[in-house]
Amino acid sequence: MSHNTYGHLFRVTTWGESHGPALGCVVDGMPPGLAISEPEIQTWLDRRKPGQSRFTTQRREPDAVKILSGVFDGRTTGTPVSLMIENTDQRSKDYGEIVDKFRPGHADYTYIAKYGLRDHRGGGRSSARETAARVAAGALARKVLSGVTIRGALVQVGPHAIDRSRWNWDVTEQNPFWCPDAEMAAKWEDYLDSIRKDGDSVGAIIEVVASGVPAGWGAPIYGKLDADLAAAMMSINAVKAVEIGDGFASAAARGTENADEIRMGIDGKPVFLANHAGGVLGGISSGQDLIVRFAVKPTSSILTPVRSIDAQGNEVDVVTKGRHDPCVGIRAVPVGEAMMAAVLADHLLRHRAQTGR
Amino acid sequence: MSHNTYGHLFRVTTWGESHGPALGCVVDGMPPGLAISEPEIQTWLDRRKPGQSRFTTQRREPDAVKILSGVFDGRTTGTPVSLMIENTDQRSKDYGEIVDKFRPGHADYTYIAKYGLRDHRGGGRSSARETAARVAAGALARKVLSGVTIRGALVQVGPHAIDRSRWNWDVTEQNPFWCPDAEMAAKWEDYLDSIRKDGDSVGAIIEVVASGVPAGWGAPIYGKLDADLAAAMMSINAVKAVEIGDGFASAAARGTENADEIRMGIDGKPVFLANHAGGVLGGISSGQDLIVRFAVKPTSSILTPVRSIDAQGNEVDVVTKGRHDPCVGIRAVPVGEAMMAAVLADHLLRHRAQTGR
Amino acid sequence: MSHNTYGHLFRVTTWGESHGPALGCVVDGMPPGLAISEPEIQTWLDRRKPGQSRFTTQRREPDAVKILSGVFDGRTTGTPVSLMIENTDQRSKDYGEIVDKFRPGHADYTYIAKYGLRDHRGGGRSSARETAARVAAGALARKVLSGVTIRGALVQVGPHAIDRSRWNWDVTEQNPFWCPDAEMAAKWEDYLDSIRKDGDSVGAIIEVVASGVPAGWGAPIYGKLDADLAAAMMSINAVKAVEIGDGFASAAARGTENADEIRMGIDGKPVFLANHAGGVLGGISSGQDLIVRFAVKPTSSILTPVRSIDAQGNEVDVVTKGRHDPCVGIRAVPVGEAMMAAVLADHLLRHRAQTGR
Amino acid sequence: MSHNTYGHLFRVTTWGESHGPALGCVVDGMPPGLAISEPEIQTWLDRRKPGQSRFTTQRREPDAVKILSGVFDGRTTGTPVSLMIENTDQRSKDYGEIVDKFRPGHADYTYIAKYGLRDHRGGGRSSARETAARVAAGALARKVLSGVTIRGALVQVGPHAIDRSRWNWDVTEQNPFWCPDAEMAAKWEDYLDSIRKDGDSVGAIIEVVASGVPAGWGAPIYGKLDADLAAAMMSINAVKAVEIGDGFASAAARGTENADEIRMGIDGKPVFLANHAGGVLGGISSGQDLIVRFAVKPTSSILTPVRSIDAQGNEVDVVTKGRHDPCVGIRAVPVGEAMMAAVLADHLLRHRAQTGR
Repeated sequence: MSHNTYGHLFRVTTWGESHGPALGCVVDGMPPGLAISEPEIQTWLDRRKPGQSRFTTQRREPDAVKILSGVFDGRTTGTPVSLMIENTDQRSKDYGEIVDKFRPGHADYTYIAKYGLRDHRGGGRSSARETAARVAAGALARKVLSGVTIRGALVQVGPHAIDRSRWNWDVTEQNPFWCPDAEMAAKWEDYLDSIRKDGDSVGAIIEVVASGVPAGWGAPIYGKLDADLAAAMMSINAVKAVEIGDGFASAAARGTENADEIRMGIDGKPVFLANHAGGVLGGISSGQDLIVRFAVKPTSSILTPVRSIDAQGNEVDVVTKGRHDPCVGIRAVPVGEAMMAAVLADHLLRHRAQTGR
Repeated sequence: MSHNTYGHLFRVTTWGESHGPALGCVVDGMPPGLAISEPEIQTWLDRRKPGQSRFTTQRREPDAVKILSGVFDGRTTGTPVSLMIENTDQRSKDYGEIVDKFRPGHADYTYIAKYGLRDHRGGGRSSARETAARVAAGALARKVLSGVTIRGALVQVGPHAIDRSRWNWDVTEQNPFWCPDAEMAAKWEDYLDSIRKDGDSVGAIIEVVASGVPAGWGAPIYGKLDADLAAAMMSINAVKAVEIGDGFASAAARGTENADEIRMGIDGKPVFLANHAGGVLGGISSGQDLIVRFAVKPTSSILTPVRSIDAQGNEVDVVTKGRHDPCVGIRAVPVGEAMMAAVLADHLLRHRAQTGR
Repeated sequence: MSHNTYGHLFRVTTWGESHGPALGCVVDGMPPGLAISEPEIQTWLDRRKPGQSRFTTQRREPDAVKILSGVFDGRTTGTPVSLMIENTDQRSKDYGEIVDKFRPGHADYTYIAKYGLRDHRGGGRSSARETAARVAAGALARKVLSGVTIRGALVQVGPHAIDRSRWNWDVTEQNPFWCPDAEMAAKWEDYLDSIRKDGDSVGAIIEVVASGVPAGWGAPIYGKLDADLAAAMMSINAVKAVEIGDGFASAAARGTENADEIRMGIDGKPVFLANHAGGVLGGISSGQDLIVRFAVKPTSSILTPVRSIDAQGNEVDVVTKGRHDPCVGIRAVPVGEAMMAAVLADHLLRHRAQTGR
Repeated sequence: MSHNTYGHLFRVTTWGESHGPALGCVVDGMPPGLAISEPEIQTWLDRRKPGQSRFTTQRREPDAVKILSGVFDGRTTGTPVSLMIENTDQRSKDYGEIVDKFRPGHADYTYIAKYGLRDHRGGGRSSARETAARVAAGALARKVLSGVTIRGALVQVGPHAIDRSRWNWDVTEQNPFWCPDAEMAAKWEDYLDSIRKDGDSVGAIIEVVASGVPAGWGAPIYGKLDADLAAAMMSINAVKAVEIGDGFASAAARGTENADEIRMGIDGKPVFLANHAGGVLGGISSGQDLIVRFAVKPTSSILTPVRSIDAQGNEVDVVTKGRHDPCVGIRAVPVGEAMMAAVLADHLLRHRAQTGR
């Protein structure tokens, strides 16, 4: 991963600012001959589209994706696939007031510290709008990953975590949160309404699971599958933490508790009796479900005033009036799925290169 | 980071197996003219050296580093620095019994799944012994980072976390755990003795802090400083989770609580009133302390038998008789520091390239 | 350089097919704060635009470039610059006849051998139309290279080489060939008219010179400035040979003849008494003019029938009826300049990263 | 290719100076399970070993290679293979006189311009001694390339080119020049003796041919097989020019002459009637012989004094007294073979990654 590109062999370069004419990505390394169409990519984009419920930003954009290259007669040709999404609802004037103010929790101050100037409109390049390009690229990655299922869920909103015994993947498609626990989803509705009324926001935890990944993907030492997943998830806007399998909880565990013991299955394949490791050992997939969780901090853009400074060094108060999500973690679910897909597509190609399988 | 290399501009390639003739690293991209010597690198290596207390492996090796290239008349020349550490105490026979057994929690099964064969001696390439090369490379990275202080501490062992109000960096050098809380260090001694008597092991949490990093290092979008730190820490053996600043705790926080408000300091520089973000915003350093924590799972090699299979598919019990640490997290402290140094050295060079500063 | 991306720090990823909706590039790593505009990039694009004389393809396209990201208020922001050129004159039907025929000298057969399918329209990705994106990127690279002048010239067409004693850079702008020798330019007009009447084509040699490159850019061993230039030029369509300085002629030279002796200049700087080396020693610039020459083979698309096979294995004759240049080398001049600029911009950033200068 | 590393998937990082304790390389990305031994690598190293005839440097070193990692029980494990060659005959005192003098044609001045200091002993990192590590890595690359034959030959020494009608590969092993033309080899003996007596040197041209490369290796646009070969050959010490197939001669050719026409073979495979293209079309292999030529300039170290300056800016005369080859092109033959092998091994892995074949 390097600046605006992720991946070694399945390489995605994204570009575009929140309020520029368009944003998009170039995906290089796509295997040839895969069927792909704009409507199929659009299906995935629609999952992260803003304005789908009262819990996400009311910016209303169709986020319509166009394929500009790399696909011929409905199939990938092996050359770069260029995808573009035009920005149609840009409302720059909303941001006029904060042109020079550094919004706490945003990248305003650090972009100025680095570059000396910035596109302030809607956060410019640091806007979560960039993740639309990731989701589009993730749609291509999924085409590469035949036999692998990638699903994401929201497992905690503010202090309210789901009851894992009620986990039902089907339920994730039936509420505006991708929540696998129907009871908790109902509770979150009330909770988020109150947060919104307070002019406040909350954080969240997302879990992404990949099933069907064969044993053997990944690589020592710095190209570990879990290291790449950690970077991929941490690169998503507002993410502050990543864990694999039992994650931080494994610090408190004993070796006897933490062992994923192995028996022989009736089909002659190993059967693991637990999955504390989250599907990866020594940086290489074990064939079990690959399980990643990541934490998203509360939306920094809130209606409650916070103290800051401006570019001239004056002390100011910042109130964000633009359209914002009370919990950005919700829309991070499809983005986390897309990053899982991108990392796995890259590792599939890397594995194939070295081993011929 | 790619397979056995980390970094883009400060590039470290490590090589070597636990029981081969030697291990080492090649560091490419070193700025020229920096004073460096074998004794200085050795100082850092000695911090992670095995056998320093009864809480770390009794494998006794001098781990003496040799500089093979890239240094002339005591200064770096800008060409690759090759460092080598010979393996002297290899005791291969200890591992005879587990040649074909897949030790749960280790990379035995996954290496076979990937490569079809493996060097079983002491874990081969997947041994934590590889981290000696990281620490040696980290010593070079520190030379690049003039003005930056990097320190690590053990903040939790099993379920026992330190009391952060007692944090004292000086104390970390006065106990065998790099523990900044003297009271807790005493408690851990007893706790780990009991763990060892049980033939068991425990996990731990390490915190690494870099002070003096100026605002502006890092890069959007996939080359974020925190994304690279996450990958770097997750690439360390047995690490299962990484967080920056408040990390997972930020999921439960509200936007109003999580804001790192800013005021003007008397020196005309911004002063942050909190550091929930852990020193990074939008992937770019804010000038605050850079704070990373990571969790290490309990040592998988334990004296208590665990169920597994062997390469022939037979169900077997595995008991590890080799020399092992009851808590591998202890020796992960200097490794975490080294990775922090490597990531920062790389980002310093990348920042300089793009901005000329 | 990797598939569709060139550069390490100044990274250009191009995309697009000859007859798709558009083509373009994403330039990542641009230093911030540089003034850049669409008209300025257009100036460079217009130099390679088709249809400017009877000696280049009659495909008539405005090749109008759009900046989609990375520029705000007329200055680069340090984020990726996305450039797009829409294809407007695509005349796909011209290519109907050769859908399945493998045109000798073109990449038709090899794309099928690699990918199993291809976009046959106008050569798809292998069309020289891709070089429009290179020239656009080269315009950005020139902005990075303050103080460096990059100029290209056509020095041989078919067997007719210029007389170097008549070299005049001003003349290159006064004839349709970028020829620095006015007499030879006149001769080429007649020669190329006869070639065209014959339904044939010829090769050419291009020379690109960069002045003002300071001593010290480049790097051992595989990142040599001349190695990167060789790859860059060889990556241009139809190029079959590259040389630096005296190039192949140095094989016949003696050491005493080939020495670029050095004296002290009155300004205290070294003065080289010759430039057989072409401005690079050990992969690093010497401060002299950087001189690269490359050969372009004759256009493979000719009106004279040539024997080949089709995708079904039938033996066929191929006659190319589309619009084609009798000498593709002419339009390779601005492309060679662009590649020189891209390589130098990349090396400037790499040099700055390692040395701080 | 980046600084001291070449390759994307078959990655070779070399290190070491001419007069340091050792030099070597780390090869990452090796497929697992390949049989490899020190004697096998040594066979290739012995081909470039100095002191084998009176036409190459009299520095006498065994150049004995040691495998330090990545091989277990005689087979590659898929982890990095570290190879080391100790320097035994270093005679530093020979170089005492030129510590501060910039030898024309060498990288002395440019290394100082870049790094501000340099290891002057024998050229340090810029010494052709580095190519021993390339040859060792090339031996590993050959193991990856089952079915591909790579052979090199010297085809011109000074102004004396071979007669290609007398080309006989067997002859290359029967003279000290790898010359395929027995008559010319005899002539070169006399010619080089006279050059040596004059205290002078001459350049040379090397041709490397790979047979058995299937159609389909390579990639558009910047990852073209020929672009990578150009960079690889140009990265060899003293190389000033590279060409593929007809190379510079194709500039003078007409399209009708240059067409490699295609017919169907009796085995149902395409048969090319010529190979002007040198086995590559659009950057992708055509299945024909892959043919590369490169020119090596005359050895810069000569007994005849040449004018230069020293590090203090004084004008001086330089006479090189060390042991040097009158024609460094001779020993470039096995190096060119090794680079061809490295490039092809890398492209085999890249091709396999994207296409699964």
